[in-house]
Amino acid sequence: MPDNPAASASKLAAREPSLPTTPARPWSLDAWLLARIGAALGAAPLRFVLWNGIERTLDSASPVASALIADRRTLLALALDPEREFGDAYSEGRVEVTGDLVAFLEALYRALEASRARGTGRKRAWLARRANDLQRARANVQRHYDIGNDFYRLWLDERMVYTCAYFPSPEASLEEAQLAKMDLICRKLRLRPGERVVEAGCGWGALALYMARRYGVSVRAFNVSHEQIAYARQRAREEGLGERVEFLERDYRDIDGQADVFVSVGMLEHVGLDNYGSLGAVVHRCLGAGRGRGLLHFIGRHRPRQLNAWITERIFPGAYAPALSEVFEGVLEPWGFSVLDVENLRLHYARTLEHWRARFEAVAVRVAALFDERFVRAWRLYLAGSQAAFSMGSLQLFQVLFGRPGDNNVPWTRQEYTGPREVPRGIL
Amino acid sequence: MPDNPAASASKLAAREPSLPTTPARPWSLDAWLLARIGAALGAAPLRFVLWNGIERTLDSASPVASALIADRRTLLALALDPEREFGDAYSEGRVEVTGDLVAFLEALYRALEASRARGTGRKRAWLARRANDLQRARANVQRHYDIGNDFYRLWLDERMVYTCAYFPSPEASLEEAQLAKMDLICRKLRLRPGERVVEAGCGWGALALYMARRYGVSVRAFNVSHEQIAYARQRAREEGLGERVEFLERDYRDIDGQADVFVSVGMLEHVGLDNYGSLGAVVHRCLGAGRGRGLLHFIGRHRPRQLNAWITERIFPGAYAPALSEVFEGVLEPWGFSVLDVENLRLHYARTLEHWRARFEAVAVRVAALFDERFVRAWRLYLAGSQAAFSMGSLQLFQVLFGRPGDNNVPWTRQEYTGPREVPRGIL
Repeated sequence: MPDNPAASASKLAAREPSLPTTPARPWSLDAWLLARIGAALGAAPLRFVLWNGIERTLDSASPVASALIADRRTLLALALDPEREFGDAYSEGRVEVTGDLVAFLEALYRALEASRARGTGRKRAWLARRANDLQRARANVQRHYDIGNDFYRLWLDERMVYTCAYFPSPEASLEEAQLAKMDLICRKLRLRPGERVVEAGCGWGALALYMARRYGVSVRAFNVSHEQIAYARQRAREEGLGERVEFLERDYRDIDGQADVFVSVGMLEHVGLDNYGSLGAVVHRCLGAGRGRGLLHFIGRHRPRQLNAWITERIFPGAYAPALSEVFEGVLEPWGFSVLDVENLRLHYARTLEHWRARFEAVAVRVAALFDERFVRAWRLYLAGSQAAFSMGSLQLFQVLFGRPGDNNVPWTRQEYTGPREVPRGIL
Repeated sequence: MPDNPAASASKLAAREPSLPTTPARPWSLDAWLLARIGAALGAAPLRFVLWNGIERTLDSASPVASALIADRRTLLALALDPEREFGDAYSEGRVEVTGDLVAFLEALYRALEASRARGTGRKRAWLARRANDLQRARANVQRHYDIGNDFYRLWLDERMVYTCAYFPSPEASLEEAQLAKMDLICRKLRLRPGERVVEAGCGWGALALYMARRYGVSVRAFNVSHEQIAYARQRAREEGLGERVEFLERDYRDIDGQADVFVSVGMLEHVGLDNYGSLGAVVHRCLGAGRGRGLLHFIGRHRPRQLNAWITERIFPGAYAPALSEVFEGVLEPWGFSVLDVENLRLHYARTLEHWRARFEAVAVRVAALFDERFVRAWRLYLAGSQAAFSMGSLQLFQVLFGRPGDNNVPWTRQEYTGPREVPRGIL
């Protein structure tokens, strides 16, 4: 049996230990690249293991999980552009995480947060400023939400609600928590029978149908996702709510008509900073000067910063999670709206994502059959990464209730929407 | 008895009606000035009556109240600079309001709001930008808060709380509502026995003493008002809380030491926009990087705009009521704080002022004896004007709870601070 070359080199090295050996040089490059990654991340409880056995633990504490890097190309790409490359490499199986994926990502995000210089200015992302014109907005939304109702039906709750739930207690089921979220929104908005509601970005229509059924309002609900609108119309017919809920396949900029209430859950993330003024103008026009009230429910941040590059390229093109100052300055203040209530539901989104992940993993084989393994891995990373981001606070979830500054027809205290609910009479 | 000249002129005019008469000309100027005031206010349900009997009702609807203008000098000054002049003229008795003063001021403010062009930009007030350096800040505060404890004791609640109360129901007494406000703040902050609290701008010390007594925390409370600090120290001694509550006669910029919690009730209005970064730095330094939580309670607005000129000159020099975007962008976001909860208590401040006004009027004779009638009238206008501003929404009252973006030791839902309170064990 001939010696294998590595063994020969090893023997050579053993004979002449004082001379540098040729095979050792590429190993040094790998270690140097890994050290470079480690330096960028600082003292994180993470371990990285290379295909060739080289490994590095970034912290003296025991690591929460390990990442296995499959080849030199991946290592090099990670060293050059970790934020973008990690997602692609994970999706393609060139990076594997052993141990708890969420814990790994939490530690990774914490390390990235810590390594960033404290930003005192308002550095707005180039990505966020790329105009989400009508055509691009439609394309961006379709890329994510038109993946197929069959896919989302596999793992969302029975009402197909794809936004942060509200868990009255951490042990509540996802179904209970999505119902509680919709009810909380209705109560914050003080919906009264016969009122007209406009919903911008209505998903599969769950909230619009709930408002009409439980609070007796009429709803015009807008969405540019063709698949979602088709599904929502079908449900309205089935539930006999076709008269009171109208689903329109239109961009929020094309909202027409008058309403008493404006509500938008999970759409602001897709609007883009440059369009905040337009959105404010739409809300103002739709409610009328000096009239109306509304609620915005959106993923935000504690300070202005762009989203993870992989997310905005692969998962949510054109997305931006704003700081509250950006929403108030851009959407509400120019149009004379007054903020009545802001609630931060960050931990509720982490819990929602925990549910979604468990349901997604339970059907991962079926998802792989519908698409492919790369799709499954990309979504696994996106869901785990989102849970990690809400859990460690790099993302926040804000519910902002607003009205007109002089409208005194508002709840006297929050007891009105946090206490036991009185079901309006005459409503189903 | 000789004819008086006016009667003679009148007779002359009656004889030669086609010629313009000299005495008629100043009457035209008065009517023109009044018309000018009317044009600036638009269709407000207000009536103005001049010393000479000329009057003007601005709206066809019946006026809510009337203003009597005593002389031409006052009329001219009102036409040129109504915002500043109205307050001085009212204080000096050159303007009298018959009917409901609050209703008059509400209608006046509504008319002024409506007449202002919609401001889309961020026009910051020159007054607000005037640097509140240490010396000026001290002088500004002393001008208002050092009027004398005897004066405030005449009409504030028994604990001497001079900020917006929280009325569990509109019928609650002022005493109950001030207690409820302090308790709400403590519960939002999740105070735990043994924690260290810094309070910036502590008034007469009621909240600091309450936190220490009822929640078992230790407090360092800062204030530049000599009179208030002296009173607060006396109360701490009387209540046996001298060990746990320290009152320091210092500006917020001189806050030193470390704390778990930062709280400031009714001080931000005196900080000035240019100092928001300094205030944020103080909060950050005091809580430590990545640690701590806090609450800001302040008078704000629904969009950036300077306060009424008379208020900033005569009542609260250097004061500015910010929009939320200004507070978030200036104080919280640069230092990495995350907003957990915003509550708008505007109507609670209107109710608080209603109580204060009633108590003030009940002792107005004693106040006049301490000072003079002009002082009484200026305070009458300030209290009524503030009630009107909160009631019609040109002023808002915000409570902002904040923490660190990744701190998961936060209430799961608001039930924790809106539901029935559990009194911590071992606390008085």
